[in-house]
Amino acid sequence: MVNSQLDQSFLAYSHPIRRTIVERLADAGSLTVGEATRDCGVSKPAISRHLKVLEEAGTIVRVIDGRTHRLALRRDGLADAQEWLDRHRRLWERKFGVVEEFLNEQRSRPARGEDAQ
Amino acid sequence: MVNSQLDQSFLAYSHPIRRTIVERLADAGSLTVGEATRDCGVSKPAISRHLKVLEEAGTIVRVIDGRTHRLALRRDGLADAQEWLDRHRRLWERKFGVVEEFLNEQRSRPARGEDAQ
Repeated sequence: MVNSQLDQSFLAYSHPIRRTIVERLADAGSLTVGEATRDCGVSKPAISRHLKVLEEAGTIVRVIDGRTHRLALRRDGLADAQEWLDRHRRLWERKFGVVEEFLNEQRSRPARGEDAQ
Repeated sequence: MVNSQLDQSFLAYSHPIRRTIVERLADAGSLTVGEATRDCGVSKPAISRHLKVLEEAGTIVRVIDGRTHRLALRRDGLADAQEWLDRHRRLWERKFGVVEEFLNEQRSRPARGEDAQ
């Protein structure tokens, strides 16, 4: 049942600052750390921790050129989480009609307490 | 920058037990709490906390019929996270050629220390 890669990927996307970094990299291709994290409103140590979470999840890669650190998304950086969601959403949408009917039926039934009156 | 709905959705999928529950519901349509959480190997209070995270994220819905609690995925339960990943993965894939070229170029350059020798 354990799948730590997916755990890390989803955890990486669960914070708005980390999603902002991913959004900027998806839009720009490659950015310096300063560009990718501009105006995030948190301290440098906090930024470092967010970048570490994204690197450990395999979402981003960092290229160090002297004092310049450049970031980019990894080729398959978003793939595992997106494919998991896509697969289960498609499975689910095929079943939705049946489940909706069941839920409506349950909701329209009188509650057990009312049966007894 | 804050988007607490997406925060909650991604956090919900970051644990293997919560993903197992979602997988079973996507596959079966609707299940009792017992069916959806069978063999997860954790205590009932832990199961309750996992279900609460999924309910608060808007991923699942619970219908209570007397003593039976049935669960189902919400119609758009997986949509927000999946659409965010899909959008940024597509943006990114359009740019990947350019970024790959940049990264290869950076990697093939001698490091700054070597320049000085």
